[in-house]
Amino acid sequence: MLKPLGDRVVIELVETEEKTASGIVLPDSAKEKPQEGKIVAVGTGRVLENGERVALEVKEGDTVIFSKYAGTEVKYEGSEYLVLRESDILAVIG
Amino acid sequence: MLKPLGDRVVIELVETEEKTASGIVLPDSAKEKPQEGKIVAVGTGRVLENGERVALEVKEGDTVIFSKYAGTEVKYEGSEYLVLRESDILAVIG
Amino acid sequence: MLKPLGDRVVIELVETEEKTASGIVLPDSAKEKPQEGKIVAVGTGRVLENGERVALEVKEGDTVIFSKYAGTEVKYEGSEYLVLRESDILAVIG
Amino acid sequence: MLKPLGDRVVIELVETEEKTASGIVLPDSAKEKPQEGKIVAVGTGRVLENGERVALEVKEGDTVIFSKYAGTEVKYEGSEYLVLRESDILAVIG
Amino acid sequence: MLKPLGDRVVIELVETEEKTASGIVLPDSAKEKPQEGKIVAVGTGRVLENGERVALEVKEGDTVIFSKYAGTEVKYEGSEYLVLRESDILAVIG
Amino acid sequence: MLKPLGDRVVIELVETEEKTASGIVLPDSAKEKPQEGKIVAVGTGRVLENGERVALEVKEGDTVIFSKYAGTEVKYEGSEYLVLRESDILAVIG
Amino acid sequence: MLKPLGDRVVIELVETEEKTASGIVLPDSAKEKPQEGKIVAVGTGRVLENGERVALEVKEGDTVIFSKYAGTEVKYEGSEYLVLRESDILAVIG
Repeated sequence: MLKPLGDRVVIELVETEEKTASGIVLPDSAKEKPQEGKIVAVGTGRVLENGERVALEVKEGDTVIFSKYAGTEVKYEGSEYLVLRESDILAVIG
Repeated sequence: MLKPLGDRVVIELVETEEKTASGIVLPDSAKEKPQEGKIVAVGTGRVLENGERVALEVKEGDTVIFSKYAGTEVKYEGSEYLVLRESDILAVIG
Repeated sequence: MLKPLGDRVVIELVETEEKTASGIVLPDSAKEKPQEGKIVAVGTGRVLENGERVALEVKEGDTVIFSKYAGTEVKYEGSEYLVLRESDILAVIG
Repeated sequence: MLKPLGDRVVIELVETEEKTASGIVLPDSAKEKPQEGKIVAVGTGRVLENGERVALEVKEGDTVIFSKYAGTEVKYEGSEYLVLRESDILAVIG
Repeated sequence: MLKPLGDRVVIELVETEEKTASGIVLPDSAKEKPQEGKIVAVGTGRVLENGERVALEVKEGDTVIFSKYAGTEVKYEGSEYLVLRESDILAVIG
Repeated sequence: MLKPLGDRVVIELVETEEKTASGIVLPDSAKEKPQEGKIVAVGTGRVLENGERVALEVKEGDTVIFSKYAGTEVKYEGSEYLVLRESDILAVIG
Repeated sequence: MLKPLGDRVVIELVETEEKTASGIVLPDSAKEKPQEGKIVAVGTGRVLENGERVALEVKEGDTVIFSKYAGTEVKYEGSEYLVLRESDILAVIG
């Protein structure tokens, strides 16, 4: 199991075709393109300057969209994942 | 449904012609040009260093103007949206 | 009506000739040149890390000078405005 | 009258010859050269993250030295001024 | 013994082949590639602005993945280590 | 008299030969070279975000070493001074 | 004596051969290489935004490793020292 640190999440990549399963279609403009994925693990959150830890807004199982260029790819036990920070997630689909 | 995270909003784009429905006309200068849109979803707000979450000033249904180059485009169930941070919104029209 | 967000203001541009109505003359040096305008709307202020919102120092009706290159131009119902942050305002004239 | 905002001051420029009235002589090295001026107005100070406003250390009438390249020039009612932040002031002469 | 300072950790490098012992396979994309290692020492944590020290999330013995380009290599008593900050660690494997 | 603002100090330059009076010899490497000086005036200190002012560690009369490229030169009543921030001072000699 | 300010330390350089006295061997990779030294003086620590001063983790006599390119070299009474910030120290050897 991959347990992300801080405000990071581990995401299972959803292959982005022209139209994905949940209906996201990537526009062909010059703007930064988002990608879709499913969260498989979340960190314990970042620590504020007052010592509190802020729980993440997202949770295991959420389908999210995020910047295509965010995060770091890892393969673990044969599957491909992306580790990224919650701040790179744009929105939850649901 | 797209649920934006933190201080993000989801905006339905308003096609920007020379003169839009609500009367914004984009000037033809060299300055950064704003764009008009309607808010369809707002995040729960950003978390301050004291642990408080700051609710957004804008709400669903607001027509807003924002920097043309801000945010990330997504298509979702056939409609085109823009996900951006509240800090990229200049003003509410109304 | 344009309601600016946060610490932003909406300014009605004053045409800057060699000598403006209130007496500002722009010097012809290589330094950044300021511009004059009248505030027509102010935001609710920025939020501090302790959760307080700081009211703006300027108010509707104030004539102010600000950096010529600050802010974003918008036309709204036939008039031209500038949306900028209070921190881009140098001084109030009066 | 020019009322500067925040931690800004309005300064009446002192013509910098080889030796100014109060005795500052600008060295001819490659280092950034300071300039001398007299403060004619001070802002109300910057706001700390705890909501307090910090009064400026300098006051109207102070003769100060500051970085030659700091601030913004304005002419107002025939006189030439410089609007700069207190943090650009190096020292008070007196 | 190497005792890392602040939020740093000392890591024993795991040779990264195509498939490592614990199953991480590095993808051959253009993205930043992570590396695997075992933590042999942790610092006392960083100090917050309120004076508290935040203990690290990771502990001695943890197998972690981290950015390949993070940290500083040192050899100590014949072994090769990497000293890096906890914020460069992506996830714990386990 | 020159009264420096905030966390600034006014320093009387010590001519840096190969070996100065107090024994500092500047090495001829490619690294940034420090310079020696005597403090003739100190500011009241910087203001923290909680409103407190932090008194400087150095005091009038201290001989200090500092980065050669830090600060701003001024001549005042025939003498040459350097105005710099306390954070540019490396160490006190004594 | 050299008394470093704030979070700085004064370090006596240890000549870095292929293998130093305490066993550090510098790897010949393209990565930033650390250097070894002995602390001869420590500052009083940096001041937090709440006014507290944070004592350094290292103390006089500690043998430490630090980035080769950090700090400023000084010669004082015939000996060569390095003044650097505690944050440039990677680990204590001991």
